[in-house]
Amino acid sequence: MERPIEIIPIPGLPEIRPGDDLAGMIIDACESSAGLIDRDILVVSQKVVSKAEGQLVSVDPNDPQAHKPLVIAESKRVVRRRGDLIISETKHGFVCASAGIDRSNVEPDIAALLPEDSDRSARRIRDAISGRRDRDVAVIVADTFGRPWRRGLTDVAIGCAGIRPILDLRGTEDAVGRELQVTEVCIVDQLAGAAELVRGKSTGIAVALIRGGDETWFGDGSVVEDVVRPPSEDLFR
Amino acid sequence: MERPIEIIPIPGLPEIRPGDDLAGMIIDACESSAGLIDRDILVVSQKVVSKAEGQLVSVDPNDPQAHKPLVIAESKRVVRRRGDLIISETKHGFVCASAGIDRSNVEPDIAALLPEDSDRSARRIRDAISGRRDRDVAVIVADTFGRPWRRGLTDVAIGCAGIRPILDLRGTEDAVGRELQVTEVCIVDQLAGAAELVRGKSTGIAVALIRGGDETWFGDGSVVEDVVRPPSEDLFR
Repeated sequence: MERPIEIIPIPGLPEIRPGDDLAGMIIDACESSAGLIDRDILVVSQKVVSKAEGQLVSVDPNDPQAHKPLVIAESKRVVRRRGDLIISETKHGFVCASAGIDRSNVEPDIAALLPEDSDRSARRIRDAISGRRDRDVAVIVADTFGRPWRRGLTDVAIGCAGIRPILDLRGTEDAVGRELQVTEVCIVDQLAGAAELVRGKSTGIAVALIRGGDETWFGDGSVVEDVVRPPSEDLFR
Repeated sequence: MERPIEIIPIPGLPEIRPGDDLAGMIIDACESSAGLIDRDILVVSQKVVSKAEGQLVSVDPNDPQAHKPLVIAESKRVVRRRGDLIISETKHGFVCASAGIDRSNVEPDIAALLPEDSDRSARRIRDAISGRRDRDVAVIVADTFGRPWRRGLTDVAIGCAGIRPILDLRGTEDAVGRELQVTEVCIVDQLAGAAELVRGKSTGIAVALIRGGDETWFGDGSVVEDVVRPPSEDLFR
């Protein structure tokens, strides 16, 4: 049997507060379940990263629209607007609803912003695991975004470390020896979506571990630099 | 340890020709590797489905643009156009480049169209496995699409059977007891992307098996009816 990839939910993360040692808590949670080995890929929910980094703002708990001024403040520009829905480009360059701000899985008087720099957030967790356990893992910070044309949300990567976000297959050949037309695969988004399958939304599992990834995936890269499409290349902004 | 999800590559599918018994070949390939059990999810590449269904058209092998008239014929309308790139809405309702037609992994004088009805294609494979092996599996037909705002391609579902494409979490509570804002998760797209991680692009592995999915995922549904967003709801058409 060919080697499978495993997607392993990591339970046991406590409620995260600003200033918490998130990397240490992730190490503990992994060591209580699947362990941590070289080439593991940890997918961490944006929400716990934002909490640990104190990216939390007080809002009126009785006003479901109280976070709207924050959406505008966190946006570089509004891309579409319909009713209460705002699709905007965040200061990081992500195009998503409500500038990635949300109020689920936080207290009613709190809105959670995206991390300031989620590639850096991923790098810090990776470096902590490398420094404290001498394990060479990749880290992806994932958030749940909508998309045009298709209903339902999927998780995508908003930050990464130790992994190449996009696998460039240009120059390789397909199964019948022709040069491939489909050439650039965004593996970090596929990994983020795969991790969501075990994390669920209401179970409070903020971390998933993906084991068995291909050797060629590992290396350097940044979601903001490598995945975010510059407006000049984009046909839908 | 919590139960992981496994993504298992299924090698051993022969080169597929029009009229081939694709379901039988998939059964054989699975039984030579991971086996088939109830609640397995089979993710099958669009390309082998199109080949088995004879969705192949002859084109001039020396003209890389020879399939362009087919793109127009397979489209309901063009959404964006830049240079050789055409983003259109296919007759099924998918919005993608080149109406999903491509020329990789087929002979140089062939272009492969999308299946006529890829939900039906998935249903046929599922029904054959149920009829011949008495196994209750889900089937997803997957293709590789680009998306706005983000570089790199990811695999998404274009057809499914035996699985609910979108998990509706409205009314359920998050980890702190608030009703969830993020409510509809497109699990079939996340499963398609997960499967791509083991299928790769040049290795010729057209089938992946996902084992360990949640009980709540299984049921009835259609990608075209449940995932394709009607133009009236869409902000980007």
